[in-house]
Amino acid sequence: MTDPAPDGAAPRRRGRPSRTQSAEGPAMRDRILEAARTEFSARGYEKTSVRGIAKAAGVDSALVHHYFGTKEQVFASAIEEAFAPALEAPAAIEDGPLDGIGERLTRFIFGVWENPATRVPLLAIVRSAVNNDTAAAVFRRLIATQLLGRVARQVDQPDAELRAELAAAQLVGTAMLRYVIQVEPLASADPEAIIARIAPVVQGHLTGP
Amino acid sequence: MTDPAPDGAAPRRRGRPSRTQSAEGPAMRDRILEAARTEFSARGYEKTSVRGIAKAAGVDSALVHHYFGTKEQVFASAIEEAFAPALEAPAAIEDGPLDGIGERLTRFIFGVWENPATRVPLLAIVRSAVNNDTAAAVFRRLIATQLLGRVARQVDQPDAELRAELAAAQLVGTAMLRYVIQVEPLASADPEAIIARIAPVVQGHLTGP
Repeated sequence: MTDPAPDGAAPRRRGRPSRTQSAEGPAMRDRILEAARTEFSARGYEKTSVRGIAKAAGVDSALVHHYFGTKEQVFASAIEEAFAPALEAPAAIEDGPLDGIGERLTRFIFGVWENPATRVPLLAIVRSAVNNDTAAAVFRRLIATQLLGRVARQVDQPDAELRAELAAAQLVGTAMLRYVIQVEPLASADPEAIIARIAPVVQGHLTGP
Repeated sequence: MTDPAPDGAAPRRRGRPSRTQSAEGPAMRDRILEAARTEFSARGYEKTSVRGIAKAAGVDSALVHHYFGTKEQVFASAIEEAFAPALEAPAAIEDGPLDGIGERLTRFIFGVWENPATRVPLLAIVRSAVNNDTAAAVFRRLIATQLLGRVARQVDQPDAELRAELAAAQLVGTAMLRYVIQVEPLASADPEAIIARIAPVVQGHLTGP
């Protein structure tokens, strides 16, 4: 016996999804991803289960596995989703001269952190990555390929990757102390005052001698 | 009925410690603190209980409360213990000219992170602070008063505290990406190569225009 689906559609059975379910794929996929993002944000990586995500989405666990695979893969997809705004960063910083890349990157990252809608999922990702090696590996792969790699390509130097990472370190550390640990006076400082001090450092790492 | 103490001393009873127990205070206090440090390192702040610390130390929970108070206070004491080497940093960086303070601070922090004996407890503290607001508050109070405050006093400027925090941000972010998230090439780079790039940034934050 299976319960009727919450939306009144045909009841679902365990195992491979039927053709009907695959046809409603994109909407279903989004619903699962939304549930996954909420669960990972609320509980962190370790305490979240595929079963819990399925329950929150009102579907069978098999359907979560069908669309995303393992818990690690669901997490990777949820991160990509949460990072979608951050992934637009390289496009934003490409749009201008190289000697302003530090300020554009700094402004972009501050924009993501200052906006509660993007800060909350980002914080959840950082917490998961700090606590769990699998989550850290997913996070590492994403920021390396999607963000740092693209920043590094802008910087036409042999040590561009290391430069991008040290620039990111200034931004990551500032975010940690300001938004996570909340050290004063940094936590309450005017964003513009911080950007004015940080942007030249980011620029220096990326294009300095 | 109470079990005999593991060391063969008189059996202990619940409640306020007897005069005999107070007499062996320093050794007992150290034993509890060592157990607390191990428990917090292994489980993080949230999953650690005073009962668990007491069990690991082979004492009654009441004795843990007697010496340290609440779980938050045990955590603060355990952090102070783990941070003892880090708290020597200001003394080390005071010992030299102001225009070398960036390199001395950077070398000191790298020394703490590169040494597994200090890296492991530090990592546990960072994990706890990122995950739990109470642990973050304890961590914040300690680094603000003990480390950043002392660095700021060396820097004789009106915005010395903010300068110290932005310098710390570069060091914290580098540690996060190198030791926690382990982004390459930063994670495997020669410490001297990183110090050479980071120290001038730290110096710039502290004493630059």
